[in-house]
Amino acid sequence: MTGHLNEIQAFYAENPLNIVQNIEQQLDTIVQINPSLNAFTSISRRRAIEAAERLTEKQNLAEMPLAGATFAVKNLFDIAGEVTLAGSKLNERHSPASQDATLIERLENAGAILTGALNMGEYAYDFTGENCHHGNCGNPYKLDHMAGGSSSGSAAAVAAGLVDFSLGSDTNGSIRVPASFCGIFGLKPTYGRLPRTGTFPFSDSLDHLGPLARSTQDLARVYDVLQGYDGGDHACVDRHSSHTVSQLNLGIQHLRFARLEGYFNCEHFPQARSAMDKVCKALDVQEEIVPEGVTEGRSAAYLITNIEGSSLHLSRLQQNAEEFDPDTRDRFLAGAMLPAAWYIRAQQVRRWYQEKMLALFKNVEVLIAPATPCVAPKQGQKTLKIAGEEQLLRPNLGYFTQPFSAIGLPSIVVPTQDDETGMPIGIQIIAAPWREDICLRVAAYLEDAGFCFVPPPLYSSAA
Amino acid sequence: MTGHLNEIQAFYAENPLNIVQNIEQQLDTIVQINPSLNAFTSISRRRAIEAAERLTEKQNLAEMPLAGATFAVKNLFDIAGEVTLAGSKLNERHSPASQDATLIERLENAGAILTGALNMGEYAYDFTGENCHHGNCGNPYKLDHMAGGSSSGSAAAVAAGLVDFSLGSDTNGSIRVPASFCGIFGLKPTYGRLPRTGTFPFSDSLDHLGPLARSTQDLARVYDVLQGYDGGDHACVDRHSSHTVSQLNLGIQHLRFARLEGYFNCEHFPQARSAMDKVCKALDVQEEIVPEGVTEGRSAAYLITNIEGSSLHLSRLQQNAEEFDPDTRDRFLAGAMLPAAWYIRAQQVRRWYQEKMLALFKNVEVLIAPATPCVAPKQGQKTLKIAGEEQLLRPNLGYFTQPFSAIGLPSIVVPTQDDETGMPIGIQIIAAPWREDICLRVAAYLEDAGFCFVPPPLYSSAA
Repeated sequence: MTGHLNEIQAFYAENPLNIVQNIEQQLDTIVQINPSLNAFTSISRRRAIEAAERLTEKQNLAEMPLAGATFAVKNLFDIAGEVTLAGSKLNERHSPASQDATLIERLENAGAILTGALNMGEYAYDFTGENCHHGNCGNPYKLDHMAGGSSSGSAAAVAAGLVDFSLGSDTNGSIRVPASFCGIFGLKPTYGRLPRTGTFPFSDSLDHLGPLARSTQDLARVYDVLQGYDGGDHACVDRHSSHTVSQLNLGIQHLRFARLEGYFNCEHFPQARSAMDKVCKALDVQEEIVPEGVTEGRSAAYLITNIEGSSLHLSRLQQNAEEFDPDTRDRFLAGAMLPAAWYIRAQQVRRWYQEKMLALFKNVEVLIAPATPCVAPKQGQKTLKIAGEEQLLRPNLGYFTQPFSAIGLPSIVVPTQDDETGMPIGIQIIAAPWREDICLRVAAYLEDAGFCFVPPPLYSSAA
Repeated sequence: MTGHLNEIQAFYAENPLNIVQNIEQQLDTIVQINPSLNAFTSISRRRAIEAAERLTEKQNLAEMPLAGATFAVKNLFDIAGEVTLAGSKLNERHSPASQDATLIERLENAGAILTGALNMGEYAYDFTGENCHHGNCGNPYKLDHMAGGSSSGSAAAVAAGLVDFSLGSDTNGSIRVPASFCGIFGLKPTYGRLPRTGTFPFSDSLDHLGPLARSTQDLARVYDVLQGYDGGDHACVDRHSSHTVSQLNLGIQHLRFARLEGYFNCEHFPQARSAMDKVCKALDVQEEIVPEGVTEGRSAAYLITNIEGSSLHLSRLQQNAEEFDPDTRDRFLAGAMLPAAWYIRAQQVRRWYQEKMLALFKNVEVLIAPATPCVAPKQGQKTLKIAGEEQLLRPNLGYFTQPFSAIGLPSIVVPTQDDETGMPIGIQIIAAPWREDICLRVAAYLEDAGFCFVPPPLYSSAA
């Protein structure tokens, strides 16, 4: 069974003996579905069944918020005994991880069961979900379309009902782009909120981790388990956790909203525009804001990503460049040749842009922006039509997400349905730093009001 | 008059009409002494007298902790209406500053009177106090010896009794090296403690501001006025201020001390060694610690300084390289050619070293290390004898200070007297982040116990 996490927990608290059998069935479904979807790169069958058996013996399932829920993780999370691929071929020569990533530990302590590792773009430098080493991850709603990247498997596995939730990472949009394309909820928390201990990095000053799920309630439940300081990540900030599940029903009264325009205007992206109109109408958004410095801020994020990523991979680029995905390699090589002064300048521009954006929250609590310019493109597509002109697809898929991760703001993707294609497309609900609770409340309101994408039972056998 | 700040305040609270005349006398002394000492690059006569006149009319001098005290600032602090030179010729073409640096404002609000701007090494990239544009700053105890840099004038003016205290900046040792050479107390607070708003930067992630004075009591009094958050400096941390003056007499009971050895061993620096022995005996220090990673941490600080500094001056290097001090220019040019990956790596090494050093504070509260390898060398000296070998002087003057500013630890320089030469030489008292109060308490104990350098009345006419 898969479904709402509170129902799963309640069911198992009454019927603990069903856990093992149900988990076995879910694993069978993954084995059956995955060859066509390609969301999993490894399935942790033995570990999952053993975890289910241990859970059966627990007396306190009613107190474990994720008891019996299944999840899988982007394959940049360390899983003890497995090699952390981070979407690459090069990492295959690494030793297996000696222990689990901190967030996996927290989820398992809350009763969740890990069923495997998920496909992703090489070294997370990707928005498409295409991977030349492990194969492209399919979109559950149209298998030959992109799942979005780089957390491709994290979105596809959840959307297909193969797991109850998943973990991904987001440097410039890698949780939010696939959540938008696959029609699920994805949360990129505030930078520094969730510890990255035991995960393979990409760009240190931009990397975030976060959960993906099929409902706001599930997302909040998982997020509340994930929160908490850990000294293993120098960027992790020691703050009080926010208990977001209990706040989901507070509604949206007293919240002031603004629709972002200017850089975020989607005149040339009719699918994004239609989704924005729908959500802004549902929330009765009157105000529009044209923020300053977004183009400059996004350019800074580009350079910082490129430079920090290249620095991380420098010895691999020097010694094994031929084993990189060609698309990734070229960008990393370019980054390795940039002078230090460009990096310093980019960080200055980023701070300047951050100040401008933070000032907006004096007058509003919630900013609304598209998540992607369009619904999931076909796999292999290389360009995107913007204002009648063919432009490069890859960089532009992150057009709307990159400006918020660049300055660490929390952002949740809420899925809507595109009327013309029937495909999902997401909208971002963005709040001030540390106010994930607000993002989740607004998402819950939209979901309750029936404005969200309702997944068709494509993989009904998995449900 | 110059003397202890509490006495000055008490005197003027009783005799406010004496302020203007006394300030005029002090200005006359500066004018008389400065041509030989070269500590001041500009004297703010009119501003100082007007400030003294305003002070005369105040009813609350007894509540102004710095009432009537005189100070001057390293010429990288903005003074409204003056050009901020930062020790350079190039900055002469800048417009005058439109307002005072934040720390100047705070001092003036507490009743202190600014008398001028002080000499410094070009763009603060210096430990000698030599400056080819504005002339070398002399050491008050031997005029043809180095004052130390880069806050040369800040130390020399205080040591010579031309002002009651001063402000300097410290990136790798620029407060502590001149404090050591000139025989006064200098405090480099925790990174992020004092806002740098309105000062000319050098290396953003390493730049600190701090006060210099002739006694611990004065230093604490000034430091307490300087503390407080300011949003104009992105690195400034919003924390409670510590009221250090009231804690000076707490003594050193319950403090655990360690003498740093290994990298900090001063076998080849007999003057530093003798000073260390003296101070460690006075504090009855039994424990020795050999910290790890210091060489690597210092190398990282070198690279970060070089890269951040070069990045800051990039357009000047491209357009006006010939107007730099040759010694400074060569280092900046080298930094401008470094790849970004080196910078990222240096910041990683720095964090790694920081973790090692912070761990030491689980077992002790106070670390003790030399401030400089030797007493002030003669001006023009280019090498230093280390273990019988001539090595470059400039970089080695910061040998003992750089490892602490690199990781933002608070450090106070306590002056001692070298028995052989009679010249001053300082020792660093270092504490955990935000524990400037501990540094000051230990310094006060040493001062009270008579272990500190007592300035001879070289410029007695100024006192």
